[in-house]
Amino acid sequence: MFNIVKGTHDVILKEASKYTYVENLLSKIAESYDYKEFRTPIMEYSELFLRSTGESSDIVRKEMYTFVDKGDRSITLRPEITAGVIRSIVNEKLFANQDYPVKAYYVGPCFRYERPQQGRYRQFNQFGVESVGVSSTYHDIEAILLGYNSLKMLGFKNIKLQINSLGDKETRENYQKALKEYYSQHIDEMCEDCKDRYNINILRILDCKVEHDIEINKNAPSIEDYYSDESKKSFDLIKKYLKDNDIPFEIDKNLVRGLDYYSGIVFEYHYTSSQGKDYGALGGGGHYNNLVKEVGGPDLEGVGFAFGIERLVSLMTDDNLFPEDIDEPLDFYVMPMGNDAQNKAFELTNFLRINGYNCDVCLENKGMGQMFKKAERRNALYAIIIGDDEVKGNKVNLKNLASQEQKTIKDEDLLEEIDKLFGEDEHDHDHE
Amino acid sequence: MFNIVKGTHDVILKEASKYTYVENLLSKIAESYDYKEFRTPIMEYSELFLRSTGESSDIVRKEMYTFVDKGDRSITLRPEITAGVIRSIVNEKLFANQDYPVKAYYVGPCFRYERPQQGRYRQFNQFGVESVGVSSTYHDIEAILLGYNSLKMLGFKNIKLQINSLGDKETRENYQKALKEYYSQHIDEMCEDCKDRYNINILRILDCKVEHDIEINKNAPSIEDYYSDESKKSFDLIKKYLKDNDIPFEIDKNLVRGLDYYSGIVFEYHYTSSQGKDYGALGGGGHYNNLVKEVGGPDLEGVGFAFGIERLVSLMTDDNLFPEDIDEPLDFYVMPMGNDAQNKAFELTNFLRINGYNCDVCLENKGMGQMFKKAERRNALYAIIIGDDEVKGNKVNLKNLASQEQKTIKDEDLLEEIDKLFGEDEHDHDHE
Repeated sequence: MFNIVKGTHDVILKEASKYTYVENLLSKIAESYDYKEFRTPIMEYSELFLRSTGESSDIVRKEMYTFVDKGDRSITLRPEITAGVIRSIVNEKLFANQDYPVKAYYVGPCFRYERPQQGRYRQFNQFGVESVGVSSTYHDIEAILLGYNSLKMLGFKNIKLQINSLGDKETRENYQKALKEYYSQHIDEMCEDCKDRYNINILRILDCKVEHDIEINKNAPSIEDYYSDESKKSFDLIKKYLKDNDIPFEIDKNLVRGLDYYSGIVFEYHYTSSQGKDYGALGGGGHYNNLVKEVGGPDLEGVGFAFGIERLVSLMTDDNLFPEDIDEPLDFYVMPMGNDAQNKAFELTNFLRINGYNCDVCLENKGMGQMFKKAERRNALYAIIIGDDEVKGNKVNLKNLASQEQKTIKDEDLLEEIDKLFGEDEHDHDHE
Repeated sequence: MFNIVKGTHDVILKEASKYTYVENLLSKIAESYDYKEFRTPIMEYSELFLRSTGESSDIVRKEMYTFVDKGDRSITLRPEITAGVIRSIVNEKLFANQDYPVKAYYVGPCFRYERPQQGRYRQFNQFGVESVGVSSTYHDIEAILLGYNSLKMLGFKNIKLQINSLGDKETRENYQKALKEYYSQHIDEMCEDCKDRYNINILRILDCKVEHDIEINKNAPSIEDYYSDESKKSFDLIKKYLKDNDIPFEIDKNLVRGLDYYSGIVFEYHYTSSQGKDYGALGGGGHYNNLVKEVGGPDLEGVGFAFGIERLVSLMTDDNLFPEDIDEPLDFYVMPMGNDAQNKAFELTNFLRINGYNCDVCLENKGMGQMFKKAERRNALYAIIIGDDEVKGNKVNLKNLASQEQKTIKDEDLLEEIDKLFGEDEHDHDHE
């Protein structure tokens, strides 16, 4: 037997339907906000992530799937999708032809070499959006709302936003100076990661999870004392809009997100289940003002967020948020008794499929009881039963599996009868 | 600027809609045949492909993206999806719980290090199905029909099947013996690949594309002289069914497909465009009787096929097979003049989105003319125009962009008016 790669998982049958349901709904909502689909490659040259995701991030430092291809170039399996989307916007020169902002959504697999643990996979799926070339705080709010409304539409209740503003360039420069001063007296006793962060991106010390460092962080200077007028005004507008629209939020001064490219607003969607359990962040994002330039494009700002699909599916399963009819039922299960019947059953099945019905047939020479059980397991609405009599008499038996009603129908009347049963208007004759 | 990885491509905006259209339609048709979705990982341990896809195949010999991960295991980015699907069926022990056959469909990216050329990518997408644990030739026919009907439903005309039967074990043993004897006198003058194939899988010599070898192949023994009774009967039934159902086909004795695991029927879907141009195979597949066992499962046979999505999309574009309304139009484009209007416009946009309308707003301080152009580029049905007067008067101007009719509507009447315009029944109020 061959094992699945450690830390990856098969998503099959009903589980796959759940993924498709979540991805399709999120895509549809994003489209209603005028975001367009972007599918960028899973493989990118490694430099892209070093430059965009940032050298101080755990992702780049420890978790990338990087290899050298047969052409001797360093390739990385994308650990996140934002960098690829920005690269494509720059490469395809969308700035020249498109109206700002360019609004992109994406969905697909990402790869990180993390320690496998409950709900964490080395190949996992992300859905996200980027709005690039934004000019107004309203664009930040739009992204925040899109994420919030999407989670509501998936059925999540008790979503609360955690937000923070990392400020603009002026804010960050002044704040980083203050942090440097403060941490210069503590950095010797802090963890090795923090020592690196001190030099590469000092802001990221603030979300260190080491207990001793958390204590030190408590007395660090607070960013609110360093906001420029512009940054304060923008943050205030966001808070006002959330309040006016009854969207629950909390300010978390230590929220900096795990990537280097954020500035301005950063946010996370936190979820508490109906049983009151706190599940942490379902996803998050923020505003960035250097990323597009770092990737070789013009000096444009953007905003985006991402959700982890694995996490959404798992929580929606726990909290019963999936509709019951997530898999379309089988309209007909065709059950032949004997060889001649098998031939007729197979032809009939293909005829019904071409006429737009979901249909399957048993070709395994099973007894009637076993076939009814198969029909049940396949969630069929009707059974069509064909024996020698039906072959000779050019007819079939049609049984409603819910009501157990059964009637005999002539072959030539079958399609008409069936169309009536399903209601010609309602039934989607998409195979015609 | 960062380059895209050589041989890969961005699929964005309208192009992405085309991929989604094709994938969704193929998935829907497969589901109507009672196939279920399987999403297996992109990374598999390399042994899986060595064993299943086969050591004699070009894929395994030259084209795999293989690397050693941080845990020192050899990982390969899947060059095709069948092997992973069979592995998952075996790993998840679906044979114990499921009715035979297990019917799987899949769609997703594959990776092959091929020389990049027109329409050939190193990351490309496949859609395919596997029917595993099959007991009857009807299952082969079902798979062939599913592929054929799917192409018809995508809009392709002039699809012709190329078919061949590689026979059962007995057939193959006898035929291989005859081939060994024949080629033993020619192999010295044949290409290096054929010399390898002679030892590993002699059947694959038959689809060598080297001119000199093609000549030699012409006089090779023909498989039809070696069919067992069982193989002949099965092949005859397939041909009869295709004939009876007016499905055009041709027998190609040299068709063996590029993978080692086939036995029994193999088939390809060939396409000739409306201009009479022969585009070769859009996809193909076949019956296999050793694959499940090779991957560690029970001794079960299967049948499957795959299409290349890139190729389908490209040909459908050339032959105008995509519906015009592949992207849903924007219901409303909201156009504010001035700062107060911007605030109202933003709130209104979010209100309409929550009520299920596709909607966007211009927040870039543009003039009226520019905003109308943006509305047009975004394919909007209506413009909502808001100036200072409209803010003060609690009203908006609604303009039908096709008829150019415009009317003024009070804020409190807007939703009702709009619902009327779109027809409350027709409009999909899915955001409520």
